[in-house]
Amino acid sequence: MANPHQDPAHPSVTFTPWRRLAVVGCGQMGSSILRAAKLRSLAGTTVALEHSGAVRKRVGELHLADEWGADPSLVAGADCILLCVPVHQVLPVLASLAPHVAPGAVVGDVASVRCGLEGAPALLPQASYVPTHPMAGTERSGPDGGSATLFEGRWCLLTPQPGQNPQDVTRMVAFWRQCGANTKVLAPNVHDQFCALVSHLPHALAYSLCRTLEGQCMSAAELQAMAGPSLASATRVAASDPALWAGILQANRHAVLKALDGFSAQLDTLRALLAAKPETQQGSGGAPSTSPPQASTQALLQAQGQALLGWLEQAQAIKTNTPPTCPGS
Amino acid sequence: MANPHQDPAHPSVTFTPWRRLAVVGCGQMGSSILRAAKLRSLAGTTVALEHSGAVRKRVGELHLADEWGADPSLVAGADCILLCVPVHQVLPVLASLAPHVAPGAVVGDVASVRCGLEGAPALLPQASYVPTHPMAGTERSGPDGGSATLFEGRWCLLTPQPGQNPQDVTRMVAFWRQCGANTKVLAPNVHDQFCALVSHLPHALAYSLCRTLEGQCMSAAELQAMAGPSLASATRVAASDPALWAGILQANRHAVLKALDGFSAQLDTLRALLAAKPETQQGSGGAPSTSPPQASTQALLQAQGQALLGWLEQAQAIKTNTPPTCPGS
Repeated sequence: MANPHQDPAHPSVTFTPWRRLAVVGCGQMGSSILRAAKLRSLAGTTVALEHSGAVRKRVGELHLADEWGADPSLVAGADCILLCVPVHQVLPVLASLAPHVAPGAVVGDVASVRCGLEGAPALLPQASYVPTHPMAGTERSGPDGGSATLFEGRWCLLTPQPGQNPQDVTRMVAFWRQCGANTKVLAPNVHDQFCALVSHLPHALAYSLCRTLEGQCMSAAELQAMAGPSLASATRVAASDPALWAGILQANRHAVLKALDGFSAQLDTLRALLAAKPETQQGSGGAPSTSPPQASTQALLQAQGQALLGWLEQAQAIKTNTPPTCPGS
Repeated sequence: MANPHQDPAHPSVTFTPWRRLAVVGCGQMGSSILRAAKLRSLAGTTVALEHSGAVRKRVGELHLADEWGADPSLVAGADCILLCVPVHQVLPVLASLAPHVAPGAVVGDVASVRCGLEGAPALLPQASYVPTHPMAGTERSGPDGGSATLFEGRWCLLTPQPGQNPQDVTRMVAFWRQCGANTKVLAPNVHDQFCALVSHLPHALAYSLCRTLEGQCMSAAELQAMAGPSLASATRVAASDPALWAGILQANRHAVLKALDGFSAQLDTLRALLAAKPETQQGSGGAPSTSPPQASTQALLQAQGQALLGWLEQAQAIKTNTPPTCPGS
């Protein structure tokens, strides 16, 4: 069962259920945490704080928490508070909760970006702030988009501050492992670079690919309806909430731009491998390919094909060398 | 059950099983056709022609066909021959089969590209050539990567020649519907543009994304192992056979380059939306964001956020307006 990626600082930890767990924001992420906590008895009492009346109604209907409401004072007495709100709402929501947060509470957000949230701990001097970001989720939004098993086999990335009480970090590690996740502690800037590459870039590509389908030989709806499964995979996450993703991409823009640059450089190389001459033997206007191309053209096509093949082979090797540690992915 | 995309020229057709169905090339596609034909009794006798000894051995072990071998004369007497070989092998393989093809046989290839294969029908003047391209497949290769249900709910695109005997086209339509596919007749150049957008471009992006993962803050293997499901979706098809895809991308290079241009234009717009100033309030070197940005900076950030949001919303609308005609996609 040795996992080479599991954090060596926390080889094995025991978990004591929270007395009172408050989840703030009951979208896919928050509702999944509440479901996992209920399923595995991870808290004596669960509390859901949610500003939307419609979502609160669903929280009640789905029996997601023991208590729910819109009043920040609901977090009073909680020994753990998890903010599951869009990244740009983390600081204002924290400020609204601050007067009600108990001394010694362990508080975290599950935001996809650390950049811009450096000021979070200072808003709650009485508490211990441990950001925890589960690398899990689907394109579905809202409390109906969550599940108790969302975190199973996934990774939760923790970005504590230097000098923070190690016990508070360990409690969060133990909680996320109870939710079924592997855990890893990362520096905030490494976290942001990591997420830009493995999550924010794939989302950017999916949204861009959907937009590319407009104004083509068929309507975008026809293209998608008649396509094979590769388009569906490539665009799956473009169904994700645009407001959430505008916030994430903007907050992590420096790392995302760097990731976009890296990707564009690869795409440019592929383009060059395809765009190289010869023109004469290809294309609908060219000679029928049953007539043999000239020897020099043939050699060029072959050399071009070899270079393209080598480029694709390296890409495939990167893909298929992935250690299969994430079931279902 | 009215399907707005089903080809109006073939609203309802009956299928008479082939007397002798020959499948040439027993990779994922060929083996799936053989499996579907067996499962649904679509041929009196099935024949598998395969040049690789190892693959022929698996054809026997998996009982994929009634007869199998490497000798082109095996196709003699077949009333249907389907070539399931990589695109650059279609013409040479057709030439090798030609002396054995029965007059009146219906012959097709399942290639992903028509460009470059214009000369195929002339190689078999005694037969009727109807290219059929099922928009189905996974990243798995070889006879073990196929399945009898691969084509269910998928689309098969037919690209007959003008003036071709409509009965031969109808027989192919009926066969593919028996395999579980919807069918659509397209002009060859429209087929190639369509495939460039919905299949070849997604593959190009997946391969490029994998290559982007090298030389980053962690190894490519670590990035993939710890990533959430969005990276796995975005790179799934990069596990596909590089030799097959080098051939496809090169054969359809004109349409693929156009698709790449369209995609890059979208990505450039996204980049511009993210790269716009202000610099001062963002980034790891910036001031902590708990201190309020200046009013003008704030306004610019907001305007930028609104433009980004609108861009993402349009992409999401394109994605979610897809009519759900393809189960499982």
